[in-house]
Amino acid sequence: MKAEILLRAVSRVEELGRISDSPDYLQRTFLSRANRAAAECVTGWMRELGMEVAHDKGGTVRGILPGKNPDAKAVLLGSHIDTVINAGKYDGALGVIAAIAAVEELLADGVELPFPVHVLGFSDEEGVRFQSTYLGSAGVVGGLDAGLLAARDKQGNTLAEVLESEGWNEGAEVFFYDESSSSCYVELHIEQGRVLEDANEAAAVVSGIHGQARLRVVIEGLADHAGTTPMDLRRDALAGAAECMLKAEDLARGAEDLVATVGMLSVKPGASNAIPQTADFTLDVRHPDDTFLNDSLYQMRNDFEDICKGRGLGLKWKPVQVSGAVACDAGVIAELLECTRAVTGGARLMGSGAGHDGVMISRAMPVGMVFIRCRAGLSHHPEEYVEDYDIKAGIEVLVEFLKRRDHG
Amino acid sequence: MKAEILLRAVSRVEELGRISDSPDYLQRTFLSRANRAAAECVTGWMRELGMEVAHDKGGTVRGILPGKNPDAKAVLLGSHIDTVINAGKYDGALGVIAAIAAVEELLADGVELPFPVHVLGFSDEEGVRFQSTYLGSAGVVGGLDAGLLAARDKQGNTLAEVLESEGWNEGAEVFFYDESSSSCYVELHIEQGRVLEDANEAAAVVSGIHGQARLRVVIEGLADHAGTTPMDLRRDALAGAAECMLKAEDLARGAEDLVATVGMLSVKPGASNAIPQTADFTLDVRHPDDTFLNDSLYQMRNDFEDICKGRGLGLKWKPVQVSGAVACDAGVIAELLECTRAVTGGARLMGSGAGHDGVMISRAMPVGMVFIRCRAGLSHHPEEYVEDYDIKAGIEVLVEFLKRRDHG
Repeated sequence: MKAEILLRAVSRVEELGRISDSPDYLQRTFLSRANRAAAECVTGWMRELGMEVAHDKGGTVRGILPGKNPDAKAVLLGSHIDTVINAGKYDGALGVIAAIAAVEELLADGVELPFPVHVLGFSDEEGVRFQSTYLGSAGVVGGLDAGLLAARDKQGNTLAEVLESEGWNEGAEVFFYDESSSSCYVELHIEQGRVLEDANEAAAVVSGIHGQARLRVVIEGLADHAGTTPMDLRRDALAGAAECMLKAEDLARGAEDLVATVGMLSVKPGASNAIPQTADFTLDVRHPDDTFLNDSLYQMRNDFEDICKGRGLGLKWKPVQVSGAVACDAGVIAELLECTRAVTGGARLMGSGAGHDGVMISRAMPVGMVFIRCRAGLSHHPEEYVEDYDIKAGIEVLVEFLKRRDHG
Repeated sequence: MKAEILLRAVSRVEELGRISDSPDYLQRTFLSRANRAAAECVTGWMRELGMEVAHDKGGTVRGILPGKNPDAKAVLLGSHIDTVINAGKYDGALGVIAAIAAVEELLADGVELPFPVHVLGFSDEEGVRFQSTYLGSAGVVGGLDAGLLAARDKQGNTLAEVLESEGWNEGAEVFFYDESSSSCYVELHIEQGRVLEDANEAAAVVSGIHGQARLRVVIEGLADHAGTTPMDLRRDALAGAAECMLKAEDLARGAEDLVATVGMLSVKPGASNAIPQTADFTLDVRHPDDTFLNDSLYQMRNDFEDICKGRGLGLKWKPVQVSGAVACDAGVIAELLECTRAVTGGARLMGSGAGHDGVMISRAMPVGMVFIRCRAGLSHHPEEYVEDYDIKAGIEVLVEFLKRRDHG
């Protein structure tokens, strides 16, 4: 690809990374000032390429490259423009910027595609504001159902109210995509893990997005004095939690592709001289196969119950959110593997442990994803970083994908 | 003992328990309004018995029953009048009230002792305000050294400054006790454990106060995405902490009288989808024998290091406070055992896993302690409770102890 297009893409990552709601770190949440400014910035870049630009009420933006046959089924490219709090510059943004760069590369080469390309920048994927992910992509596939519209932000306003009071009420279009108008959705995203770095590869094709269960586990014991209660008279909730955590780790280590994580834990009463009464922790378990995930959860719960029973502890097992695995489309995967082979020489297929907009878009059409190596697997962190070389590979994979498609 | 004296003692526990700095729970910290009010209340009861009453600058109070020979070495009785936050009514208060009741019982019986009795109510034992325990008892044995006087409360004021600005500056006496003026210190206190309840006994004699080490352990791993980091690429600080906690528990279970407790634990970054970078926890380890305690700590540290090394984690092991074991005086123990045998029929000798004012007073003279059964071993809790029957036994042990002593 042309050097100036790559350099422009790299500098756009920086430019978008400076648009933040906080002066101290990067943050762009749903319909925030910075999120709207980022949307304006992205549509500006699209407009420079002569794309037909629009935004929807929820702040998702798109640019259309009509191609030779504007009535053919469109290929959708894109990612999200919102971020977590204290975010990195690449997560989401890179997918939108790379899609625009791919369009620019095609235009520079005078390639006219036989189908339209729609580049989408979703206004919410991280779900910071409403604690509900994928609001942007849900919006474009008719997925903002009554349940989602009733979700409330920290100020207590529902999503429906916020769309009415803070939404893009002037000139907003209603985006709606399904298989009748679109052939597929392809997203480029940073890997957010260290598999590519460990393998020394720039890119991979995603086989699917793993199923995920988020649970809250509460273990109840008895608060006693740490000095005066002999070990055999204790019902220590934290000791029980420690045994459960190691059991979950053990199960995950023993099964391919299964991961289990305890990321938050709090102890009550929480004094150095008090035996813990309560240990309250999150459990995040993921696997590419829903049946296997469910079986693993069943096994963990049984093991936790045995551990707690043996220690005279109570156990509460509360599923918080369960999302099924989403498979990427076999045809799109095959095409993308050919493209990565052509660009990088490699053709790695890997699962995604993290969720992405494709989860929502897959309800409407085939989806595919390309992962790009990121330094140390770091994401959701200001030091998130992608080498220019890998950004180049990613854009080239998208260009190849569009070029090789003879229809939408 | 006389029923009305017991009933008065029981109602005084309630009365003192209503004197609090908070309308919602019991709290009396060093030199607080409620702590001073409690001191006034206690001196009032002493005065009613004709005791010679005084207070020191730090708010510790005493009443003297001169006896037949005011120049003989005094026997000291007492406990502390401060409390933790959200405290029970018995911890500390019962020891002071029982001592006053014992004096009342002797006076009612017309017994005149051949030595003076000093009843002490220490203004600080729990150490809430300055995070440094035994300020009251330290004060009466010359233990408020430069280090303690430089300790700061949450407002940033040193103990020296607070004594000057908030201390009892009018009419305060300087209390000073050592072996030249005093024969021993005996304290009645709730057990704060379930050993007596399990054994169905009202009282026990304390052999000594266990040595205690308080440590802070920090385990450093690497924060990664919970969904995208395979189990074998993880350096999970909390999983390492869990293994260390179980190891400490295992070591303590395997050694008589050894206890080990992790009471506080915090995790960073602390998100359900982030592998813990840091697990930071307290470790409280106690044993009656200092050498054994040190050997156990050495073993734990080695084991923790092995665990962390195996997981690619960093370990910081930070001793916060180490207090050596304190033995009660063999002679006083023998006397108290005779008294408990006479009163309850039992003569249990047990160690104290909790610290008490005797730790400080033992620097100046022989000390002895009587433990009284408390319901469910509960202490530092609003539901702390002692049966009247057990309070009676405790007071009677003190009366017996004073009666049987023919000299101070």
